[in-house]
Amino acid sequence: MSLSEDLVLINAKLVTMTQDNDGYSVSPLCNLHIKNGAIHSITHGHVAASDVFDCQGRLVTPGFIDCHTHLIFAGSRADEFEKRLQGVPYQEIAKQGGGILSTVRATRQASEQQLIELALPRLEGLIRSGVTSVEVKSGYGLTLNDELKMLRAAKALEGHRKIRISTTLLAAHALPPEYTGRADDYIDYVCNEIIPAAAEEKLASSVDVFCESIGFNLKQTEKVFQAAIDNGLAVKGHTEQLSNLGGSALTAKYSGLSADHIEYLDEEGVIALARSNTVATLLPGAFYFLREKQLPPIEMLRHHQVPMAIATDLNPGTSPFADLTMMMNMGCTLFGLTPEETLRGVTNHAAQAIGLGDKIGQIKPGFEADLAIWDVEHPAEFSYFQGAPRLVARLVAGEFDYA
Amino acid sequence: MSLSEDLVLINAKLVTMTQDNDGYSVSPLCNLHIKNGAIHSITHGHVAASDVFDCQGRLVTPGFIDCHTHLIFAGSRADEFEKRLQGVPYQEIAKQGGGILSTVRATRQASEQQLIELALPRLEGLIRSGVTSVEVKSGYGLTLNDELKMLRAAKALEGHRKIRISTTLLAAHALPPEYTGRADDYIDYVCNEIIPAAAEEKLASSVDVFCESIGFNLKQTEKVFQAAIDNGLAVKGHTEQLSNLGGSALTAKYSGLSADHIEYLDEEGVIALARSNTVATLLPGAFYFLREKQLPPIEMLRHHQVPMAIATDLNPGTSPFADLTMMMNMGCTLFGLTPEETLRGVTNHAAQAIGLGDKIGQIKPGFEADLAIWDVEHPAEFSYFQGAPRLVARLVAGEFDYA
Ligand SMILES: [Zn+2]
Ligand SMILES: [Zn+2]
Repeated sequence: MSLSEDLVLINAKLVTMTQDNDGYSVSPLCNLHIKNGAIHSITHGHVAASDVFDCQGRLVTPGFIDCHTHLIFAGSRADEFEKRLQGVPYQEIAKQGGGILSTVRATRQASEQQLIELALPRLEGLIRSGVTSVEVKSGYGLTLNDELKMLRAAKALEGHRKIRISTTLLAAHALPPEYTGRADDYIDYVCNEIIPAAAEEKLASSVDVFCESIGFNLKQTEKVFQAAIDNGLAVKGHTEQLSNLGGSALTAKYSGLSADHIEYLDEEGVIALARSNTVATLLPGAFYFLREKQLPPIEMLRHHQVPMAIATDLNPGTSPFADLTMMMNMGCTLFGLTPEETLRGVTNHAAQAIGLGDKIGQIKPGFEADLAIWDVEHPAEFSYFQGAPRLVARLVAGEFDYA
Repeated sequence: MSLSEDLVLINAKLVTMTQDNDGYSVSPLCNLHIKNGAIHSITHGHVAASDVFDCQGRLVTPGFIDCHTHLIFAGSRADEFEKRLQGVPYQEIAKQGGGILSTVRATRQASEQQLIELALPRLEGLIRSGVTSVEVKSGYGLTLNDELKMLRAAKALEGHRKIRISTTLLAAHALPPEYTGRADDYIDYVCNEIIPAAAEEKLASSVDVFCESIGFNLKQTEKVFQAAIDNGLAVKGHTEQLSNLGGSALTAKYSGLSADHIEYLDEEGVIALARSNTVATLLPGAFYFLREKQLPPIEMLRHHQVPMAIATDLNPGTSPFADLTMMMNMGCTLFGLTPEETLRGVTNHAAQAIGLGDKIGQIKPGFEADLAIWDVEHPAEFSYFQGAPRLVARLVAGEFDYA
């Protein structure tokens, strides 16, 4: 189907998720006019148009956005999951070749085509939860060629499904085995070779770092951020997940798009995020899967009006979940977010977290016609009942993709 | 498609879940012969048959069994979920008509046909997680007519999808408002009118009671169990979920099929279950959704070799999840079960929990050909990665239903 020139969704009830107070309310029945893949206008009453889709009173929301995933990888960690539950100590699992480096090994060995094929069922899971945009990080290649291969595989998904892919270079995800004991050398390699190449080939729009005691330190993180900025790329961080290192404030200092995880963030860090309008991306799937106890500072984030996003963190080690609405349920159940907060977390705030806040995530004239049509009556239901299919159709840039 | 007379699944890798040590291992490539809806034999090598399905090396497991659901209900509790997260106190929600009685009101008002239509998307969720058998409880009618209406709606699902439905009368779920202050009178009504009618019409094979400080006491529970036995029905209990009342031991005393929830069960109760070979049905979805802290006594259950089942407890108030493999993940993540235990929990142990342990839940000559064919390599994956579709097809009594 070619770009719709004049598609109209009639009998739609809109949940626009615009930033005003009305964004979360259900509109009266109306018509949503789409032109050239974008939202053109909202009207009431009878419509004379050739290409009309009757929503029959169903809810229409912005297509959901999963703003933090590691969708591209090879290998399964099911064996490691099983061993852990059988009581095998983590050290022993690592000695047997488990952990993130097993994913790095498998991903390096896989071709771009294999990575795409492995990712498609995961992408299908996200699509079933209403997703029209997915951020995808590299970070299991850890060489110039393998990192770029991952990013190319991610972008290629747009040729397989109606989906918008946003790519992030996460070469500073883990220290590759060939750099053991030489983390600073690896960071130099990332800054001087991988980031410029990814920017040159336009394979990523932002750069991410795993800033953590078991990842990269603050000084190394800043080097990477500076290289990103120098190469015209935005920054974001895996910060304050397991300890409070100051990575979120550093992300804010570089006007980062988002600081992600942030269970251990303190008020100083929250204020820094608020000042730079950096999104706090909450990842309840990893919190749940790792059985963490430290909750992110939700009340402080609310108080300082930091925009909060919710994402899957889809990855084989710490969040094996290709289901965004289940993450919304966890956001409510485990973090105490309201259903309005979780819905903002996968629409307009998630859009902001990938630098597309003025383009997707809201139903508003001028925005892309990325939409989801649902068999639900109230927007709280997205966060509530899970498992029963309720997605009727998605549109990406005005083009239909039925469930 | 009529009953297959001679269907053969070729190139199948079986995970038979038989009770011996081999049940959880993956078999070499083989052929599974099905006759008259039952498993006839397992062979190796070339097969000459007219009706052949090539599994292409995929895993074949027994169809999964969700042995504890409240699948039939009307009304949504999304509003109550949202209010709770907005900080409205439970008392206020109850005063506004929330809680289980709102589900009772909506279910009483719904017709049998409406109940069926509302249940079908939930059933679809379970089917997508590989389920071929579902236990469904009444308990939102709380009058003779409304309880039987629920059970009829449950049974009618077999006419809409390829699925095996097992029904349980749970009239002793909550005290209906018209009996306020007269719980013993209601129990008499259940014992003298509802149970005999359900048995007479063959609408239930077992009887369940919510035995809890906020439900029915031990004496009332025993009355119901006795009436069940007198009417030729098996018993099972919602027991030890929020406190240790002795309901599980009582269930064992009546040779109950299963004691369900059991977070607060002590060793005496565990031993009672072991002696009567009563299944311990674990419901991690409710544990998660209610943010409970008290874990079920897994180590004691293992030690005394009590068979453990895993189920969704699918219901609008405390476990809004139509996804059995996500419950397997919660069983591992929250309760520390192994992937083998959770797989037994939805196959042979779940079959035992609904009184069909010699008929379904294992791949074994003579058992029903209720099967699931999967795009996974190792049975640990069912409990591990969630959201990405991997079910290729289900068979119920030898009849195919593609995903
Ligand atoms: Zn991540
Ligand atoms: Zn229940």
